[in-house]
Amino acid sequence: MSTLEQQIEGVVDAILEDYRLDRDIDRMEYKRQPDKDKIIDIVEKLRRVVFPGYFRDKTYRIYNAKHNLSILIEDVMYSLTKQVSRVLRGEGEAEEQAAEKAQAICLEFFSKIPAVRAAVQTDLQAAYDGDPAATGMAELIFSYPGLFAITVYRLAHELYLLNVPMIPRIMTEYAHSTTGIDIHPGATIGKYFFIDHGTGIVIGETTVIGENVKIYQGVTLGGLSTRGGQSLRGKRRHPTIEDNVTIYANASILGGETVIGHNCVIGANAFITKSIPCCTRVSMKNTELEMQTRANCPGCQNPTCE
Amino acid sequence: MSTLEQQIEGVVDAILEDYRLDRDIDRMEYKRQPDKDKIIDIVEKLRRVVFPGYFRDKTYRIYNAKHNLSILIEDVMYSLTKQVSRVLRGEGEAEEQAAEKAQAICLEFFSKIPAVRAAVQTDLQAAYDGDPAATGMAELIFSYPGLFAITVYRLAHELYLLNVPMIPRIMTEYAHSTTGIDIHPGATIGKYFFIDHGTGIVIGETTVIGENVKIYQGVTLGGLSTRGGQSLRGKRRHPTIEDNVTIYANASILGGETVIGHNCVIGANAFITKSIPCCTRVSMKNTELEMQTRANCPGCQNPTCE
Amino acid sequence: MSTLEQQIEGVVDAILEDYRLDRDIDRMEYKRQPDKDKIIDIVEKLRRVVFPGYFRDKTYRIYNAKHNLSILIEDVMYSLTKQVSRVLRGEGEAEEQAAEKAQAICLEFFSKIPAVRAAVQTDLQAAYDGDPAATGMAELIFSYPGLFAITVYRLAHELYLLNVPMIPRIMTEYAHSTTGIDIHPGATIGKYFFIDHGTGIVIGETTVIGENVKIYQGVTLGGLSTRGGQSLRGKRRHPTIEDNVTIYANASILGGETVIGHNCVIGANAFITKSIPCCTRVSMKNTELEMQTRANCPGCQNPTCE
Repeated sequence: MSTLEQQIEGVVDAILEDYRLDRDIDRMEYKRQPDKDKIIDIVEKLRRVVFPGYFRDKTYRIYNAKHNLSILIEDVMYSLTKQVSRVLRGEGEAEEQAAEKAQAICLEFFSKIPAVRAAVQTDLQAAYDGDPAATGMAELIFSYPGLFAITVYRLAHELYLLNVPMIPRIMTEYAHSTTGIDIHPGATIGKYFFIDHGTGIVIGETTVIGENVKIYQGVTLGGLSTRGGQSLRGKRRHPTIEDNVTIYANASILGGETVIGHNCVIGANAFITKSIPCCTRVSMKNTELEMQTRANCPGCQNPTCE
Repeated sequence: MSTLEQQIEGVVDAILEDYRLDRDIDRMEYKRQPDKDKIIDIVEKLRRVVFPGYFRDKTYRIYNAKHNLSILIEDVMYSLTKQVSRVLRGEGEAEEQAAEKAQAICLEFFSKIPAVRAAVQTDLQAAYDGDPAATGMAELIFSYPGLFAITVYRLAHELYLLNVPMIPRIMTEYAHSTTGIDIHPGATIGKYFFIDHGTGIVIGETTVIGENVKIYQGVTLGGLSTRGGQSLRGKRRHPTIEDNVTIYANASILGGETVIGHNCVIGANAFITKSIPCCTRVSMKNTELEMQTRANCPGCQNPTCE
Repeated sequence: MSTLEQQIEGVVDAILEDYRLDRDIDRMEYKRQPDKDKIIDIVEKLRRVVFPGYFRDKTYRIYNAKHNLSILIEDVMYSLTKQVSRVLRGEGEAEEQAAEKAQAICLEFFSKIPAVRAAVQTDLQAAYDGDPAATGMAELIFSYPGLFAITVYRLAHELYLLNVPMIPRIMTEYAHSTTGIDIHPGATIGKYFFIDHGTGIVIGETTVIGENVKIYQGVTLGGLSTRGGQSLRGKRRHPTIEDNVTIYANASILGGETVIGHNCVIGANAFITKSIPCCTRVSMKNTELEMQTRANCPGCQNPTCE
């Protein structure tokens, strides 16, 4: 064996040896872990179930739309059941019990699809009504990241309510990766929800949002402090946003006891840690600008420039 | 039929039934809709047309670069014509008329490619000149998200000017998804445009940007209020940024009447809703910090710590 | 030849002609350029090497995990060596010399994998301890963007230390694209590093971060001014963050001489360009809110509303 081959073998052996240290990163229990790629595939197929006329699967023929849609729904139901079964085994359930429970959960989940679709239709309407740049419903469905993130959230939230471990979060983090919009599947969000632009938005696990709420890029609906770490798990840590509230870009609203009353308008960059009564317009005080004329302004051709 | 099979069939039927409600999300007109995956493929191929030496298509052989590039260009021209034809049919054009019009639009679009490439070369130069972390042109082309977003914008903008519906926005939203940089295809942007880092940037539909402008992550060039919703469509809602302006991270410049004069420097986090005269350095006033020494600072080993 | 065919040919020829202008965007030296798709594939495979039990390659059979992992490691070692060889040729090395050097670099790189894995295990622990929403280690590994970005950074940083051109940056920009978290591979980051949410974070090339540091979405650890452009290359431009520091959302800490002492807590939105002594809690002064009750509040049903 040449020296190079020996060196390569040495490096490979050192890594294989490293896998035996029995830390979290060394665990190998494939059959009790979800398959992330499969879950992403499920999200994309569920989106086709929600918008049957917009995202076509090239592998189905289109002679009979109804027939193809049945195949699609059964297909994604089968895949999802398998993944749910895996994560239930990861929680300690026996193989057969996990499979049965997964079947029941998935049937329940799919029975919610019409309700999810009804909510998404209201989100679509809210986006059209709220954005002068929107030219039509199809454009919104094909290109608006906010609508994508909300759709994935609404689906994941149903699985979260059915106590499915891990999968709802993998779903919303896929949407986060795609859109920059981070909605925890545990949040509660009413109808006619509109997110514009969206990059940088964070909506925490215990947030409650009413109907007809509109938020812009960079808004955080978050916790006040996480020093408590795991001891805070399950406690209310994120704010309540009542109906008809608009929150402009980069505002932060923090804390589990913070309530933004209905009909409020929260200005850009506002930093809020206390409740705001209804029908209030909030903006930052003391945000004056300091102006300074640049001497010897480089390249300036303007005769009024000094 | 077993109970389980009956249950599954019941769930599938309920969803199929739901598709008959004739809402926006229920529409199914495949042939009049763009194919989003195809458009993303077109964007990637157009990027190869712009940078012929950097992103190679593995399906073409490299014996004859010129021959391969002709194939690539004809290939993407064919796909784009097909997609443009679809969206024109979606706007109500008859099949034949849509096909002819799409052909003319695509010829016009491809005749603009040399001008787009000339502009992108200036953006590349601006990025190299502006970023001390840049080690060379190839690194910029392979890894800078700003250059990617600008390239896609410059291509999409040409289709926007040719009044192609939906496709330009799908293109720039693909770049938004990839980079976190949201440039509306309707914006007007001069040469030597540099975006650093970029995540969270929003550049609205009616923004006008001069030459040699530099913007950082989190900058919004946006509208003042969208309460008007669809009634504002087509109106000037976003600012004008003149030549040689630098806008630091997370600054917001809002409103259709707001003009930032040439040679201005806008400081980080500035929130601007009125015009700024040329050659001005703007920063936020009153941004003092409040300091508080932490008593019983946990784990502190420093003897000067209390 | 029909008129249409002539027109198409004319457009194609004009673009081919444009490639002869010999600008940066016209260069074609495939064999001296990295293959971006391959590098992304390498990143994904390296992630499987780091977390061998979580992201399975479907192309390997699982009869013998150890055997499969050896194949995976050798496979990615081979691909990486090829890519490193290409970029070294791009720097002017002769073919044979580049191949040898690449081999040595890759052996050195793979010998660091156990150290990288040990550091990632501490990051995983820090994420679990720091986030009340985390339900377990597997959820973190499958869905937390911060952990993904840190893992890719830790791998890319080792290649950066071995002076590999371009590839480390392509790797971290892939993570940036996936997560919105932009960590330059040149930054130095200690153990137990936790990023929550993460979208919009920027960590510059010469940043130094101690152990047990926690940062939130939108935080910039950046430069003060880049007017110097390329003349600043290699100089210290970004801050030092000592051990046990927490930096809340959207804070900016800028400048190569800025040191945040150990045990500091930096409040949300703080804008810092000077050093902060250890054990200090910093927040923004003068951030009062301006409240205004909305007259004729639309749609308000609340009798207490005016």
